[in-house]
Amino acid sequence: MTLNEDELLPLPILMLLNDYTNAIEQTIATTEYGQSPIELYQPIDYIMSLGGKRIRPLLTVMSAALFTESWEKAIRPAIGVEVFHNFTLMHDDIMDKAPIRRGQPTVHEKWNENVAILSGDVMLVSAYEFMTEVETTHLKAVLKKFNRAAAEVCEGQQLDMNFEKRSDVTKTQYLEMIRLKTAVLLGFALELGGIIGGADEETGLLLKKMGDAIGLGFQLKDDLLDVYGDPGKFGKLVGGDILANKKTYLFIDALEKAEGETQDALQFWLSPEDHNNIEKVQAVTEIYNQLGVRERTEAEMNRCFEEGFAYLNALKVDEEKKKLLSEFFRNLIEREK
Amino acid sequence: MTLNEDELLPLPILMLLNDYTNAIEQTIATTEYGQSPIELYQPIDYIMSLGGKRIRPLLTVMSAALFTESWEKAIRPAIGVEVFHNFTLMHDDIMDKAPIRRGQPTVHEKWNENVAILSGDVMLVSAYEFMTEVETTHLKAVLKKFNRAAAEVCEGQQLDMNFEKRSDVTKTQYLEMIRLKTAVLLGFALELGGIIGGADEETGLLLKKMGDAIGLGFQLKDDLLDVYGDPGKFGKLVGGDILANKKTYLFIDALEKAEGETQDALQFWLSPEDHNNIEKVQAVTEIYNQLGVRERTEAEMNRCFEEGFAYLNALKVDEEKKKLLSEFFRNLIEREK
Repeated sequence: MTLNEDELLPLPILMLLNDYTNAIEQTIATTEYGQSPIELYQPIDYIMSLGGKRIRPLLTVMSAALFTESWEKAIRPAIGVEVFHNFTLMHDDIMDKAPIRRGQPTVHEKWNENVAILSGDVMLVSAYEFMTEVETTHLKAVLKKFNRAAAEVCEGQQLDMNFEKRSDVTKTQYLEMIRLKTAVLLGFALELGGIIGGADEETGLLLKKMGDAIGLGFQLKDDLLDVYGDPGKFGKLVGGDILANKKTYLFIDALEKAEGETQDALQFWLSPEDHNNIEKVQAVTEIYNQLGVRERTEAEMNRCFEEGFAYLNALKVDEEKKKLLSEFFRNLIEREK
Repeated sequence: MTLNEDELLPLPILMLLNDYTNAIEQTIATTEYGQSPIELYQPIDYIMSLGGKRIRPLLTVMSAALFTESWEKAIRPAIGVEVFHNFTLMHDDIMDKAPIRRGQPTVHEKWNENVAILSGDVMLVSAYEFMTEVETTHLKAVLKKFNRAAAEVCEGQQLDMNFEKRSDVTKTQYLEMIRLKTAVLLGFALELGGIIGGADEETGLLLKKMGDAIGLGFQLKDDLLDVYGDPGKFGKLVGGDILANKKTYLFIDALEKAEGETQDALQFWLSPEDHNNIEKVQAVTEIYNQLGVRERTEAEMNRCFEEGFAYLNALKVDEEKKKLLSEFFRNLIEREK
């Protein structure tokens, strides 16, 4: 994650982000999760080395840096959040039968399902081991919050799978699902950094709410990019969600709003018939456009981002220090992939 | 787990065991792991209610009671060990494609694999939540040791799966595998109780070694019961390991010792040909008998138990208090199922 050069953030702040990123990447690159048996530990090195934006650990470190100069002590717990996130990816990919992750074969494809189950289990244990490295006075609070977030992420994944079999999912239910599956871990990442940095409980709660709100916005952005992303920039296949009839915010909104002929057309494209892929993506996108789905989704997304920024503003921290976090958010909001 | 009436343990001590068991069962029966979505939490209630001997939580509580009158504070962390154990069963059953657990359908059979993966993940998180309830001063030490034991149990399971595909497993490698897969969790259960009860570090280490040694013995006992158990008493099918060509201590010992015609006969029965089940079990058992496999395995098992009891003797605790633990071990050693 680097900021664009044309964004006028003072150089010292940019250099901080660079320091955080380097420290995170360095720690990930040199961490030994274990040695033997290799079937258990190689997949952890593999998935952790596939990259990604490292958003969660960066949030933890940036959040800690709001309250303390010694942000280094946030690094290893921050890696714990990233290890946890990658554990969920490893297990979700089995459940979703996903063959590719970040352009590479998923662990259950490269090895097998049993390896992906057991290696994922060890990753979850490893995440706790990293988390255990917070100061002893913070340990109980951190674990309670981590346990809660971890269980909620699993609840979100189960809801996501349940929604595949349902046709009556409401926007409220969808937002609750993505809150659990995606947003709460960003909230926890920020709260964790706050605790490590020495923030009080009220401030921790603000950080959590900030992450939850921004996280919801990010997922809505993802849903939008899947349909309206620039195919040259968006990492995944544009229209993938449409082809999979995935119940995104856009999908649910369209189903709610469509009437008469538009409803018939939408139902036709959602039917399990053998449609031409390109035609289906074009037709459904056209229906979304007619119904104003994009605008309503963007409005909901912006509402989330605004809520997140309101929490950031409410934070009783030197304004100068908030700039990196707010620029980081803005950069993610404006991302095109 | 109840002791036989003909064993002359003083009534007050027996009543203590009863108290511990009741407290454990009561807590398990009334624990809510979570509510929604039910696919995530029902399987946890299900597997936890299938019973079992509750050996691990009993060890934790008995161990704590060696050092403190207020053994109740060990109950919830003890349940954490049992939840962890059942999490490993839920995931192992997927990997081993096991249809039955304690006479009932396994979770992936009753629901499906995805449910068993994700519900197991939440169980692991839940085990940490229970573990977090130790006194704050003990939390870091407990977590470090729990993380270690948890990772080792996964390593043991991976080795067990690897051994299925190998024909050159040595006794040393087998003992290391069962140490990891089975014994270290008993060692942790005892050490955890010690820490909760206020034992010093050296005593904790003795407790751990005791559990490791007794745990190895239990697994060898299991291997022996599979072949020499009374079909009327043994819970599982006698000869199941032989039919599956499972690389138990007995199997490896027989392969090591067999020569000439006996070796040929053994290889014949191990070959993937379509053997008659009853004939195969009888013939392989006969070969074990000829080679003295049972005696050597019993000798190794007794060596483990003696080592365990030596650690118990070395424990600087009122002898009267040790009686329950030693009787509990003796009862497990003499079990026939």
